[in-house]
Formats: sequence, structure tokens, C-alpha cells
Amino acid sequence: MPAPALAHAADAPILLREMAGPVAVLTLNRPAQRNSLSEPLITELHQALAEIGADKAVRAVVIAANGPAFCAGHDLKELTARRNDADRGRAFFAKLMNACSAMMQAIVQLPKPVVASVQGIATAAGCQLVASCDLAVASEAAAFATPGVDIGLFCSTPMVALSRNISRKQAMEMLLTGEPVPAARARDIGLVNRVVAAGTERDQAIALAQQVALKSAYTVKLGKEAFYRQAEMNLADAYRYAAEVMTQNMLARDAEEGIGAFIDKRTPTWRDE
Amino acid sequence: MPAPALAHAADAPILLREMAGPVAVLTLNRPAQRNSLSEPLITELHQALAEIGADKAVRAVVIAANGPAFCAGHDLKELTARRNDADRGRAFFAKLMNACSAMMQAIVQLPKPVVASVQGIATAAGCQLVASCDLAVASEAAAFATPGVDIGLFCSTPMVALSRNISRKQAMEMLLTGEPVPAARARDIGLVNRVVAAGTERDQAIALAQQVALKSAYTVKLGKEAFYRQAEMNLADAYRYAAEVMTQNMLARDAEEGIGAFIDKRTPTWRDE
Amino acid sequence: MPAPALAHAADAPILLREMAGPVAVLTLNRPAQRNSLSEPLITELHQALAEIGADKAVRAVVIAANGPAFCAGHDLKELTARRNDADRGRAFFAKLMNACSAMMQAIVQLPKPVVASVQGIATAAGCQLVASCDLAVASEAAAFATPGVDIGLFCSTPMVALSRNISRKQAMEMLLTGEPVPAARARDIGLVNRVVAAGTERDQAIALAQQVALKSAYTVKLGKEAFYRQAEMNLADAYRYAAEVMTQNMLARDAEEGIGAFIDKRTPTWRDE
Repeated sequence: MPAPALAHAADAPILLREMAGPVAVLTLNRPAQRNSLSEPLITELHQALAEIGADKAVRAVVIAANGPAFCAGHDLKELTARRNDADRGRAFFAKLMNACSAMMQAIVQLPKPVVASVQGIATAAGCQLVASCDLAVASEAAAFATPGVDIGLFCSTPMVALSRNISRKQAMEMLLTGEPVPAARARDIGLVNRVVAAGTERDQAIALAQQVALKSAYTVKLGKEAFYRQAEMNLADAYRYAAEVMTQNMLARDAEEGIGAFIDKRTPTWRDE
Repeated sequence: MPAPALAHAADAPILLREMAGPVAVLTLNRPAQRNSLSEPLITELHQALAEIGADKAVRAVVIAANGPAFCAGHDLKELTARRNDADRGRAFFAKLMNACSAMMQAIVQLPKPVVASVQGIATAAGCQLVASCDLAVASEAAAFATPGVDIGLFCSTPMVALSRNISRKQAMEMLLTGEPVPAARARDIGLVNRVVAAGTERDQAIALAQQVALKSAYTVKLGKEAFYRQAEMNLADAYRYAAEVMTQNMLARDAEEGIGAFIDKRTPTWRDE
Repeated sequence: MPAPALAHAADAPILLREMAGPVAVLTLNRPAQRNSLSEPLITELHQALAEIGADKAVRAVVIAANGPAFCAGHDLKELTARRNDADRGRAFFAKLMNACSAMMQAIVQLPKPVVASVQGIATAAGCQLVASCDLAVASEAAAFATPGVDIGLFCSTPMVALSRNISRKQAMEMLLTGEPVPAARARDIGLVNRVVAAGTERDQAIALAQQVALKSAYTVKLGKEAFYRQAEMNLADAYRYAAEVMTQNMLARDAEEGIGAFIDKRTPTWRDE
């Protein structure tokens, strides 16, 4: 009885959301479309991130995917269909690229850590999604590619995130050849943090997120924001700014509790915020 | 009869240029001078790059070298001879350093991918030449050094390219000690993409260049330019810019052809441009 | 007779300074406090660097430490005691963070190379100290961590130096998890240059510093300053600046001597300056 199954699949939400303790797990759920980032999926991801950002019960996020591929990038059929627009798609393409870039930046700006759980191949904007996360756990079966060059569409937005993760020659090789980089090599070049046995990446990504979720939410929020802001400053400005952040941090309740607990050799209790 | 051989060598062009399919191969040909970048060689390289940039028949470039050394950097005898100038060489040194920097930047700005083929040691501005290429294939017999510090002339212009390829401590070790880095270590730190059996580097560099030459020239040009431009922007500006590039790319003929071919499972045919 | 020993320890200077040939070795000497960077130690380090900067007899610097830990970061008891100030410590915290940032930048700005000798764990501002040095030699027993997040005080100033040494995902993992990175991994990711047998790190750091101390002091000074300045420029500005530095360098006495010696195949004699 394949028909009901297909009907079910068509009705299935394109983004799943569940909690694993204090960790929100977002699962891309368009496996038949290799989890490509259609406009609705970009919108749902951005919306879920906004809600998670405001939800004090969520301390960390995992972005995972169902099916053999992690994410194949943009939905080429969706893009192609808009070539029939009066403007040959220009307005839609611009809107979509900006919406996708805004969603990727929302991961960077989210005041909670985001861990990618990569079970299969991550290509183009899918590779960008991994690069945009704070941390990434990859299955040994995963791979990473920016193959836009093979279809005449250079991975220009993906490279913004990619080139801020890995060195120039390595980024250029991925971008110019389109060839996939296996998980182990991806770790060597800095694109992912950990490579684990296939099938365990989701649990290990959740475990890593839970580990960070045990820290003070205030501290993680302050630190994550400061990390990406100081990265764009020169050394003197970065130190001026970071010294202010440290002073503010020292005066916060969680630093007083944390340092006190450390000196007293007890476990700290963080404020929920 | 050594005299004719020497005469022949003196007459030999200092830069060889040949085609390997759509790939222009430039070969440094001053082996007896370890391919040092004399003013005439810098001029010839810059001129060749300018011609290649305008030549639609060329889709990619390989920079290789004849003899045991890839390139020993500036020609110290040429520099020293100008100490007899009325200004002790100041005007010549300034002109030469700016000409060399302009040639290195012409590689970065060239709208076609450039692959270094490194058969031997690449030192000082020779190491800079490798760092300035988009991709690099090295023989396992190759090595890389910035030993200017040993002769009282810090590799200041080479480090501009080097420090944009590798991490700070690794760059500082090369610059302060002057010690050579073997090919395998150079790959680990991101200075070259591939290390291959000695004697095969030229063929493999050409093969890599030919692989990229099969892509859409329009797409590679757009993407290479965008890569280096966005690398100097902050994240928000880089995304704003890259989203515009993606939109422009989507509307181009080669993206329409490439995406259409991908969906139809056929081989795309790129426009010559 | 433990009392005299303890009394001796209390009287012991918190920063030792000795010469190993032309190399000044600064040794953090608060082993019982895990060499934490108390305000007096920060002041002494900064003062010692200022004196070394002006001392022509010193050609290079090693920063080492006594005891099992290299440096545990800020002195938490010192910080906590100031919570009793009328302003809850705000003024002191701001002053201390700025003083520590200024000392770290003094390492970067010092016109002589600075090599870290890391015998044990380097945490928080201790890890920052290693990252701020030009070069680092680590014992195979050393480790590196930014565990401020565990006590509610994110390592925001340490990350300024750390994130300029290693890639983003690796920095984020250290900062968000607080977990230590073993010496071998620290080398792989670019935080240290060399990992050596435990107990030999001090000698090898001194040997590395002495190797650089044999170069022209003028050249090293010019090059080190140019390295960090050009790193904050875009490519065109960096080349414009570096070409000027090269020209200035060529006209200096030590380049004339060094290049002349190289051509004549003799050992150069550097001017003391």
C-alpha cells in the first residue's frame, strides 16, 4: 500500500522540532528532495530559530536531517520554475538569496549554541548550513561539497560561511572543482569538530549540545555574541571591546555564582534566563 | 662544445608559454638563476597574465618552472647592482617591489583559475608566487621557505600572501627562522592543495587546471572575483554582496543551461566567453 | 623544616628573569597559585617586556613557568575579593582586564620575537598568553583550555588572541565546552609550533629563540611589526605597505651586509641595534 505512505510523506512537516532535555533538535525532513532548502524550508528554519531564541527552556540547538543526504542546497526545481516570471525570476532569486542569507546569519546571531549533526552529504547551501553552525559533528559517512560550479551557479553565498571556516586554498579547491571532501578531511581542515561512527552523529551532536546547555545561558549568550563581533575588529578594538564584555560578565550574577562555586568546590546553580 | 650550449641558454626565453588544451602553461625558465624574479621576468609574467586574461581560448593557467628550484625570489645580483645608483637604489627598489606586488595581485585578479606546479624549493617571492595562486600542486620533493631574515631582508611582501594562506604561528615560524617546510607539512598547514610523486606535479597541475577549465568560464570568473572580494568584508556585507552575485549568476545563460542540464540529466554546453 | 621553605616561597619573586645568551627568559613563578595572572604579575610582566624592548642586549624572549601548570589565567581570589568594593568591583575589573589586554598587546608590539615554553596546562588568560606569543613550544604533557564558561565567566579576552591563531569551529569548541586540547592537537590546529618531550620544552624554546636571535635585530623588528600590521589590512593596502617596508629594509645597513655576505658566501655580521 504505497499510496497512503506517499500521502503521509506529502503531509509530513518539512521541519521537525523536538526537545532532548534543554536541547531543541531541528530535523530537515524533505528526504526525497535531499532536504533542499526550498523557500518554505528556509522560512520554517528562520521562524524556528526566532522562537528558540526567545524560549528560555531551550539552551542549545541541534540541526539534523532525515534521509541519506544532509542537505543538497537550494531547490533547483523551485528556482527553475520562476524563470517563467515576467522578470525571468530576478525578484524571486534576490528575495530567496537574501532570505537564505538572513537565516544563516540568524544561526550566527542566535544567543544559544548551534550544533550541526551531519549524517550524509552536505552540498552548496547545505555545506553553508554546516559552516554557519557554531559546532559540527559529522558521521564518518558524511561529505561536504560546493559543486555549484558544475551547474553554472558558483556557490557564492555558501563560500561566505565556508571561507570563514577553512583556509583559502582548501576553500578554492572545493569551490573550483566541486569535488566532495570526506568527513575526516573536513575535520583536518576545520570544517567540522568531530567525526563519529555512522549512525551515532545525532546522539553525539545532542550530547555535545547538552554539555554546553549545562553552562550558564547568560554566559554562553554573552560569549557567543562577543566571539563573532570581535572576529571582525582589529586587535586593539577587539581587546577594548572584549575587556568591556569581561567586566560586564564579572558583575553578572552567574559569574559571581560560578566563581564562588569554583572556589568553594561546589556545583554552581545558574539562573534561568 | 659547451659554448654553443651556453649561447643557447643565454638566448632562451625567460618565460615559456604553451597551451595544454584550454590551459595556458607558463614556465619560469631561468634555471641557472633558480628562476629568480628579475625585473624582466616579473614584467613578462605580468604581461603574459594580462594577455591570458583577455584570451577567450584560455580557461585556466598553470605556473611551473624548469630546473631544480621552483623560484628563489628576487634576483639579489640585480638588486645589489643598483646600490651604485645615485639614490643607492631607492627608486629602483620601490619600483621593483611595487611591480612584483602588482604581478602577484594580477594572479588574484585574473578572471581564470591559476594553479601552481611546484617541482622544487620555492623561497621568498617564490613562496609568495605559490601562495598567490588559487590552487597549488607540489611534488613531494618540493619545499617552501621565507628565508629573507637570514640575509637581513625580511620577507615582508611574501608574507602578505603567505599569511593569507596559513595560520599565524606557522607563518611566523617560517618568517622568523627562515627554515624550509617540506611539501607534506605545507599541505597540512594549507599552503598547497596536493602533494604528488616527484616528476608528476606538472601533469597533475595541468590535469587539475583542465578539470576546472571544463566548467563555465563565466561562472568561474564571477566566483573567483567574488571569493577574494567577500573575504575582505564583514559577514553582513559579504552576504549582501554574495546574494547579489548569486542573483546575477542565476540570470546568466550558463546557469540556466547548467541547471537545466542537471535537471534533465544531460551534459551542459557552456557559452564561450 | 617546612617553615623556612614556605617563608622563602612567600618571599620569592613572582617573575624570574635571566639571560640565556642573548635571550631573556621570563619565568612565571607563582607555582602554588598555578601561575595565575594576579595584578602584580601582569604589572611585572608588562614592565619586564618594556625593559626588554629597550635593552639592545636582548635579542629574543622566552616566557616559561615554574610548577605543574603553565598559567591558570586570572587570579579568581583576587577578583572575588574586590566584590566588596563600593562599586562591587567594577572599576577594578575594568582596570585589570585593560591592564591584562595591554600586556598581551605589548607581546605583539615588542620589537623582538617572543617564544612561549609551555610545560603544563595553559588555561583562560594562560592560553591567551601562549596565543599572544609569536611562537610556542609545548611539552607533550601540556594542554590548552578556555574553561571560563564553566565558572560563568566566558573567556572573552582570551578568545581575541585564540581566534587569531586557530579556526572558528576549533575556537568555538574550546570556548563553549571548556575542554582541554592536548599538545599534539594544539599543534595540528595551529596554536603551537612544536611539541617536544616533556622536560625539554624550556631548552628547546630557548634554542628556538636563540636561533632567531642570531638574525639581524633590525630586520626582525621591522618584519615582526609589519607582520601584525599588514594582517589587519586588505590585500591592496597590505601590498602597498609591505612594498614600502621592503624598500626601507633594502636601504638598511643589515640588508646590504646580509645580501653581500650571501653573494660572497661568507657569514654576515649584524649591527647591534
